[in-house]
Amino acid sequence: MQFARPLSELIAQLERLPGIGPKSAQRLAFHVLRMPVDDVRRLAESLTRARESLRLCSTCQNVSEGETCEVCSDPRRDDSVICVVSEPRDIAAMERIHEYKGRYHVLHGLLSPMDGIGPEHLKVRELLERLRNDVAEVIVATNPTVEGDTTALYLARLIKPLGVKVTRLAHGMPVGGELDYADTATLLSALEYRREL
Amino acid sequence: MQFARPLSELIAQLERLPGIGPKSAQRLAFHVLRMPVDDVRRLAESLTRARESLRLCSTCQNVSEGETCEVCSDPRRDDSVICVVSEPRDIAAMERIHEYKGRYHVLHGLLSPMDGIGPEHLKVRELLERLRNDVAEVIVATNPTVEGDTTALYLARLIKPLGVKVTRLAHGMPVGGELDYADTATLLSALEYRREL
Repeated sequence: MQFARPLSELIAQLERLPGIGPKSAQRLAFHVLRMPVDDVRRLAESLTRARESLRLCSTCQNVSEGETCEVCSDPRRDDSVICVVSEPRDIAAMERIHEYKGRYHVLHGLLSPMDGIGPEHLKVRELLERLRNDVAEVIVATNPTVEGDTTALYLARLIKPLGVKVTRLAHGMPVGGELDYADTATLLSALEYRREL
Repeated sequence: MQFARPLSELIAQLERLPGIGPKSAQRLAFHVLRMPVDDVRRLAESLTRARESLRLCSTCQNVSEGETCEVCSDPRRDDSVICVVSEPRDIAAMERIHEYKGRYHVLHGLLSPMDGIGPEHLKVRELLERLRNDVAEVIVATNPTVEGDTTALYLARLIKPLGVKVTRLAHGMPVGGELDYADTATLLSALEYRREL
């Protein structure tokens, strides 16, 4: 005897999510059985709606509901500075410090020759196209990891010849850590002490 | 700026699940955005289908797709023994040892006066009704915790006067642990050394 089919099917689906093992999947599934039907429907709809309605902003490659994301369509932001991040969630981390007023660009990954991830797998071409407009500075805000460092140096070598200043967030952040987990104060000082590459 | 609405809505929904904090919710949500659309639809459907199609077995109160669950509709099982568990998932734990061939009864909780959970909140009445038929033994397989012990003693006092033998899984299991996490060997010896209450 195993669980009733719809239950074991749900457990199997949940187990495929990152960070959710067999035990957590089981506990989550049983929790779902106890949730009000409307709450379960709302969760299910959120899943499909998020997946189906969101796309990448045609300018900065951030996750967006429309053709251009909220940051790119904000006329009050400074067009002359672009902050380059690895993932869309890193934009939220930067925005939390309420200090940066420029634009963003999401690479969707970091260079990792070991894993066969080269510039062609990242949104690098799209970044270079944006530099044709009047951009004075590119702030590379990749994680202070091997891949983040590699990506920052690669971008610096590519962009500096175009006459654009390339800076990087200061290593005020714990080395080896992740941008997404940095606290506001650390990120703030890292932004303040950014240095030219 | 926050995340695009469908994304922050999904994060909010995920955060409400047990064991999923803000960070995990965010990571899961971004994972969903990268999943194939069909996989997301399948996950969403599993959620609603499990919640909508499953109900409690009218006999043993286990989670079931039909009126009676798989165990209760199996004619080869022994009607004279009922194993009482706290949660439906505990049935799966018992079944994994491939030794027990009787029936089950799910209480859906444990007595906990501190939390205001009394017998009327559990499926105790339904258990007593089943004892009108020819039941020789009730094996109480509640967790070896304060609540599990309290519930076992309460049931023993209630059932023994009816002339039904009441036993409990032996404390071969680590005290304070949870049935659901016990390994097969431990559970097997606990079943073997069950003692009359």
